[in-house]
Amino acid sequence: MGDVLFERLCIIGPGLIGGSIARMARARGDVARHIVTTAKSQASRDRVRELGFADTVAETLAEAVQGADCVVLCVPVGVYAKVMEEIGPHLAPGCILTDAGSTKSSVVRDVRPHLGPGVRFVPAHPMAGTEHSGPDAGFPELFQGRYCIITPLEDTDPGALGKVRAMWERAGSMIETMDPATHDKVVAMVSHLPHLIAFTICSTADDLAEETREAVLKFAASGFRDFTRIAASDIDMWRDIFLNNREALLEMLARFSEDAHALGRAVRYGQAEFIEDRLARGRKIRRGLIERKQA
Amino acid sequence: MGDVLFERLCIIGPGLIGGSIARMARARGDVARHIVTTAKSQASRDRVRELGFADTVAETLAEAVQGADCVVLCVPVGVYAKVMEEIGPHLAPGCILTDAGSTKSSVVRDVRPHLGPGVRFVPAHPMAGTEHSGPDAGFPELFQGRYCIITPLEDTDPGALGKVRAMWERAGSMIETMDPATHDKVVAMVSHLPHLIAFTICSTADDLAEETREAVLKFAASGFRDFTRIAASDIDMWRDIFLNNREALLEMLARFSEDAHALGRAVRYGQAEFIEDRLARGRKIRRGLIERKQA
Ligand SMILES: NC(=O)c1ccc[n+]([C@@H]2O[C@H](COP(=O)([O-])OP(=O)(O)OC[C@H]3O[C@@H](n4cnc5c(N)ncnc54)[C@H](OP(=O)(O)O)[C@@H]3O)[C@@H](O)[C@H]2O)c1
Ligand SMILES: NC(=O)c1ccc[n+]([C@@H]2O[C@H](COP(=O)([O-])OP(=O)(O)OC[C@H]3O[C@@H](n4cnc5c(N)ncnc54)[C@H](OP(=O)(O)O)[C@@H]3O)[C@@H](O)[C@H]2O)c1
Repeated sequence: MGDVLFERLCIIGPGLIGGSIARMARARGDVARHIVTTAKSQASRDRVRELGFADTVAETLAEAVQGADCVVLCVPVGVYAKVMEEIGPHLAPGCILTDAGSTKSSVVRDVRPHLGPGVRFVPAHPMAGTEHSGPDAGFPELFQGRYCIITPLEDTDPGALGKVRAMWERAGSMIETMDPATHDKVVAMVSHLPHLIAFTICSTADDLAEETREAVLKFAASGFRDFTRIAASDIDMWRDIFLNNREALLEMLARFSEDAHALGRAVRYGQAEFIEDRLARGRKIRRGLIERKQA
Repeated sequence: MGDVLFERLCIIGPGLIGGSIARMARARGDVARHIVTTAKSQASRDRVRELGFADTVAETLAEAVQGADCVVLCVPVGVYAKVMEEIGPHLAPGCILTDAGSTKSSVVRDVRPHLGPGVRFVPAHPMAGTEHSGPDAGFPELFQGRYCIITPLEDTDPGALGKVRAMWERAGSMIETMDPATHDKVVAMVSHLPHLIAFTICSTADDLAEETREAVLKFAASGFRDFTRIAASDIDMWRDIFLNNREALLEMLARFSEDAHALGRAVRYGQAEFIEDRLARGRKIRRGLIERKQA
């Protein structure tokens, strides 16, 4: 067991991600001596008290961050500006501020104006999750064997970066660093576009005549089902992600749409070779994943 | 064990589906007394001889169907017309002709002109499969607990329909009947459109700048991966399916595209309520699947 990383670790938003960080820190013992948290609703705060994965459950944001040497934002990215407005004035000089938000350019945009002197900001995004949310959803192993992308800024303090990196390593994650814009493009392609497609195909099916819709649900096992699995995710979180990664998401959607239309056009005009080429590329990418053991 | 259904069952195309039917018939003993098959290539015919899941491996199509009281087409739907041209003249009066093709209107279109007098045609589609193909891919349990859709025509002989139904019931499947056009719409939505999307998103990723593409493969676990799983499937089969279910597939693609664009537009203009509505519908459909135990 290495040195304990933080004296007082404050987790804003003890849901799936925040609750998993707290449980992981509890289970290890070498991440923080004291864990503080607060949630938006009384119900969640009470539930966290029952579950007992934090030492202190604060009633307000200001109270929660008081005296913390590390604060982790684990709230939907759409409320970052509002939360920062409230906690900004209460962050101690030297405090590390980091986060788990699924978008990074918007996070930098919303956090930066509220950073007091000496507060050390390290944006991060653990690439781990489930379709569940809330205080009961977390578990200490969530981040094991998963990537965590850190997107340091030009002026990010190396000491703070090192500590955030150490926290994720202790959580069992592999660390990658990149700039916020690259992060946003990559996650738009690997995660946000697939979710947009999954939500869309569900609503397309929902609009079908009743009889066809019933049949679709019945025979879903033939492929449709795999597409809906990720469509069970939290609405607030995904609305916020879509709205806060707008540019990268719309770019990837435009590329995908062009490609889908090109394939549709080839089907219409019976262009077998074009179709075969696209199918072959699908298999190639799939093989790439299998070789990288990501399949 | 009921009466043996067929004296001489001929399976054209002992790949994943045909090889699974043969293995299932072998394992049960009450489906056929004698199993004949033939494949396109010498390599596959030799391999089936080695594997031994048929009693006779014929060298030609004409030879294979000789004296069969049931013939099952298990070849890609694009070669049905060609195969029927060759076997049509050799089908005995009274023989049952059925199939496993993934499209049904095109199958009826391609098979009907070649039906000799007294040949009893029962189009069918087992809703089971894997992404593997060829003589080694099949296994006797493939159809257990899966649906098999039969699309009888107005003049389909009830006796022949009963026997084909019995064969699939013995394979462990649940039978549904519908007309070919309805079948084609339903499978376009549950299977063909998801496959088209999966192949497309892979080629969209493949076109990204090298650095971004590498990152996509690395972080695929965040959603992309689930979309590529079905993109490993056989190229010949899927080219044929797309080309032979053109109308229904293009209709479903058009509906999906409109919906994807509407959601993209809402993202562009920050229409939170519209987005929430779509996300809520995704969850609703997903819940529908869970309730039907299809998730
Ligand atoms: N889920 C994933 O797969 C995943 C993966 C990687 C990153 N992320 C990111 O991680 C963050 C959290 O996601 P999650 O899945 O853990 O969500 P979650 O389970 O819904 O938890 C969100 C937490 O934030 C709290 N919260 C919301 N608004 C707040 C406010 N205005 N003030 C204080 N607390 C507030 C909630 O409190 P109440 O319970 O009282 O509402 C809840 O504790 C998001 O930014 C998300 O993009 C998620
Ligand atoms: N795979 C699925 O998930 C699935 C599910 C439901 C229905 N289906 C349908 O079932 C049928 C077979 O699919 P599959 O997955 O079993 O394919 P497969 O494993 O590739 O097998 C196809 C078989 O057809 C033979 N064949 C191809 N062209 C032929 C020709 N001109 N004459 C004689 N034999 C020929 C092949 O012989 P060679 O090996 O010598 O090429 C092979 O034995 C297709 O219509 C497909 O749409 C597939």
